[in-house]
Amino acid sequence: MLKGGLAALTVGPAIRMAGAPTGYSGSDLERRLAAGQTVTKQDLSTPSLLVDLDAFEANLARMAAHAKSAGIALRPHAKTHKCVEVAKRQVAAGALGVCVATIREAEAMAAGGIGGLLITSEMVGNEKISRLVQLTRLSPDTMSVVDNPVHARQLSAAAAAAKLTLNLMIDIDPGGRRTGIAAGAPAKALAQEIGKLPHLKLRGIHSYAGPSSHVVGFEARRTHSHQAMAPAIATWHELRREGVPLEILSGGSTGTYNIDPDLKAMTELQVGSYAFMDVDYRRIGGRSGPSYDDFRPALTVIATVISKTYRESATVDAGFKAFATDRKFGPELKGITGVEYGWGGDEHGILKFVQPSRAIELGDRLEFIVPHCDPNVNLYDRLIATRGDKVEAVWPVARGYG
Amino acid sequence: MLKGGLAALTVGPAIRMAGAPTGYSGSDLERRLAAGQTVTKQDLSTPSLLVDLDAFEANLARMAAHAKSAGIALRPHAKTHKCVEVAKRQVAAGALGVCVATIREAEAMAAGGIGGLLITSEMVGNEKISRLVQLTRLSPDTMSVVDNPVHARQLSAAAAAAKLTLNLMIDIDPGGRRTGIAAGAPAKALAQEIGKLPHLKLRGIHSYAGPSSHVVGFEARRTHSHQAMAPAIATWHELRREGVPLEILSGGSTGTYNIDPDLKAMTELQVGSYAFMDVDYRRIGGRSGPSYDDFRPALTVIATVISKTYRESATVDAGFKAFATDRKFGPELKGITGVEYGWGGDEHGILKFVQPSRAIELGDRLEFIVPHCDPNVNLYDRLIATRGDKVEAVWPVARGYG
Repeated sequence: MLKGGLAALTVGPAIRMAGAPTGYSGSDLERRLAAGQTVTKQDLSTPSLLVDLDAFEANLARMAAHAKSAGIALRPHAKTHKCVEVAKRQVAAGALGVCVATIREAEAMAAGGIGGLLITSEMVGNEKISRLVQLTRLSPDTMSVVDNPVHARQLSAAAAAAKLTLNLMIDIDPGGRRTGIAAGAPAKALAQEIGKLPHLKLRGIHSYAGPSSHVVGFEARRTHSHQAMAPAIATWHELRREGVPLEILSGGSTGTYNIDPDLKAMTELQVGSYAFMDVDYRRIGGRSGPSYDDFRPALTVIATVISKTYRESATVDAGFKAFATDRKFGPELKGITGVEYGWGGDEHGILKFVQPSRAIELGDRLEFIVPHCDPNVNLYDRLIATRGDKVEAVWPVARGYG
Repeated sequence: MLKGGLAALTVGPAIRMAGAPTGYSGSDLERRLAAGQTVTKQDLSTPSLLVDLDAFEANLARMAAHAKSAGIALRPHAKTHKCVEVAKRQVAAGALGVCVATIREAEAMAAGGIGGLLITSEMVGNEKISRLVQLTRLSPDTMSVVDNPVHARQLSAAAAAAKLTLNLMIDIDPGGRRTGIAAGAPAKALAQEIGKLPHLKLRGIHSYAGPSSHVVGFEARRTHSHQAMAPAIATWHELRREGVPLEILSGGSTGTYNIDPDLKAMTELQVGSYAFMDVDYRRIGGRSGPSYDDFRPALTVIATVISKTYRESATVDAGFKAFATDRKFGPELKGITGVEYGWGGDEHGILKFVQPSRAIELGDRLEFIVPHCDPNVNLYDRLIATRGDKVEAVWPVARGYG
């Protein structure tokens, strides 16, 4: 038992140790699942990244139903998940394929049997062009984007040397000056240029208004998105009137999925976050009120309380390396209110008890909704697919680069 | 040639394509190096994480010389690099072993033949305790930290069941309320408790004053560190006077490496960032002036300019997933002045030309000093070790969790 000065330090009961120690590393876990053994959340190493299958499946079904009723196609953005298993389920729910942001994601999707790839970032430089050509041999319907005639000529030369055709989309800048050519005359001239270059096939226009997706408030977001997309849509109509055979106008996000179809021009949406959701998207407000709950939070990080010395706080084993840090806010505890997460450095988070809805003890395992899903997934090699408390599968994530 | 409206859009010469396209993925690169072929920075996929071997080796030599002359040992923190090859070079330069922050790092180091491990985060919960026990079988001198008597008893029980001895350090809170027991009576009572528990060996005290390391200005940093460490040092002296056979007092950082030895109590430093450096540490100020240049920036991310539509900006293929985002500032261009990096989302950075020291064109490959080295390394599977323009080796990084 505790002695003297120690008594004040231990708050609550002893460390919870349900069952015998397991000590599964990620690869142990995969072996156990492959052998048909039962694995629960209690067995997982922390921090681990979990996807709640009930919520995830509901999100996929809801977006699929929306797209069907709105008369628009889906090519969901796989930069969110980098996971072939997720992409397979999106395609099974009716998606045309997936968008990807990097050549590594594209290669992983193609290797996993996912077709209909649209690479939404310019593949510039020898190394990227060469890998794009190799990928197109494997997956001939792959599309990528271009915003510069010099780049278009490089792609044409590489395609000619490889004796194949590269499918291109013109990337139009919706105003953020990140990537994309200006709508109107510059974009039209680029379309003409591509039309004359051998071994290139112009498939359509890509215009992603990233800033629109996070505008808070439905009406403000609708106005922002309509303004951002208007020039690209005008260019789309002009080029088609001039006889340029554009087939695809791609854009949109989880923030604008129920705004963009009203524009009556976009042929497909590249929504990503809807599958998982995050703290960021929950803040933007929905069509019918301040809460954006069109999709359910499906992605969490499970962490362990590793230090509990003070009455008003506790420390978990999840910090900068476990959660995306690109937003101003951190993660949110799932299922417990009145507790605030604060960054505690690379490997730690400090929970402050404001008015906790339950006691938090040393050894507790807690789940957190992630701040921003895309970069959060990128921190993990595995997505642990769970239903209730049970682990159903472990899905590899093609995270990182190289 | 360009037509009409396009002329204004192409700034500067055509995309630079030195030599034939290569298209190396990370695994291609490893195969080429293993076959003895020459690989240069031009061949690398972007973004990639590079370590400049000349700078890195100079940093290791400088810290080793400092420790020798200051009469203090080094157990560098491997949470910075998570890389066995880096740890081997630190041990070759005289280090006792390495500190680690996670069980995964510890397992990777032990598997790579690195001994003298000190795990500086509490290994709480069945899964961590079980893996700690397994690791201790492989590497019996492994140490870990404890700040709670309940946890100490759990460790004792697990060690007894496994018929081995766990080496422990008492973790003392230097004031940040992140982890650690309070100095003085609570810490002394915990030491007594550990002394009575079977299968535990108390080796010393761990106290890491993280906030001290980033205090700007040498004198302010010295004051902060001395105040933060004083209670742990007092406890260290008291326990030793009472006959508790403590051997090790571990703490310190790259920010306080030339401050902590003056305390004449710490037996070893757990410096980490000195090997690589980052924008963060370059800002804290050195002993002799406002610039902290004791160690050279050795860690960079190489990125490609993938969009160049406007005169005053350009976009690179490196954003939230390529750089640590936990600081208020982003990366800094290496070797080019008058250009500011701004975040452009998950996969992009936007370079603003304030007064650029050279022209930046589509296809250019640029190197950036990373904002914060530890979480930046954690985004990559490989450290590409370079000397000048040549790639000498590819070092695996035990990044992530699981």
